[in-house]
Amino acid sequence: MKKVDHIGIAVKDLEQVLPYYTETLGCPLMKIEEVEGQKVKVAFIDAGNIKLELLEPMSEDSPIHKFIEKKGEGIHHIAFGVDGIEERMSELRENGVKLLSDEPKPGAGGAMVAFLHPKSSNGVLYELCEKK
Amino acid sequence: MKKVDHIGIAVKDLEQVLPYYTETLGCPLMKIEEVEGQKVKVAFIDAGNIKLELLEPMSEDSPIHKFIEKKGEGIHHIAFGVDGIEERMSELRENGVKLLSDEPKPGAGGAMVAFLHPKSSNGVLYELCEKK
Repeated sequence: MKKVDHIGIAVKDLEQVLPYYTETLGCPLMKIEEVEGQKVKVAFIDAGNIKLELLEPMSEDSPIHKFIEKKGEGIHHIAFGVDGIEERMSELRENGVKLLSDEPKPGAGGAMVAFLHPKSSNGVLYELCEKK
Repeated sequence: MKKVDHIGIAVKDLEQVLPYYTETLGCPLMKIEEVEGQKVKVAFIDAGNIKLELLEPMSEDSPIHKFIEKKGEGIHHIAFGVDGIEERMSELRENGVKLLSDEPKPGAGGAMVAFLHPKSSNGVLYELCEKK
């Protein structure tokens, strides 16, 4: 794992939350986009050395909607930036780590992403994230 | 907020969890220390651009013990590195942010730390952290 790319944060309403980040905490908004596969609207916040990825569910079957229903708003995942995501996934599998998908999937910012099962990581949801 | 210094992660048993980080994920262990004020044993993991701070409660009245009882093991907080922590705390208070203490307290690594109330941050526990 070369570095942490971003921290994912589940929020109910991006528009309501954004001024807290941009004005109160003083972290600039980088961009907003929709990720159809995950049914989320995503705002990237520049926190200096990493990004904060604010995730608003776009429908009730979004994984983020289910997360908020179960645990409330808050920190959702930590994403490691990687090269060669498929090789990393194979290595982790060989080391007994359970992954949430067999193949990487399209994520925000044109990245390919895959999640490690929180049971393998003592309750932390880790993401692997490969930029094009 | 100039950058993210570390991500705090609550674990029940450091010794059991460490090989996952150092061997499976391949992130080096930097150091282990005890923070008496918070009643936690802390392992710092080098994740490249930031640190992961693994927090094991040292007694049942540790805030980390209470967190694990309530929510289970997992991500506990995000810490921003700051200069002039008392001025930052005053500015936040003036902007209506609730803080968990009136004054900064000694944290791990000889830093002075203060926490923002998660109700002010849509469920996220943010820490301000000033290194000496």
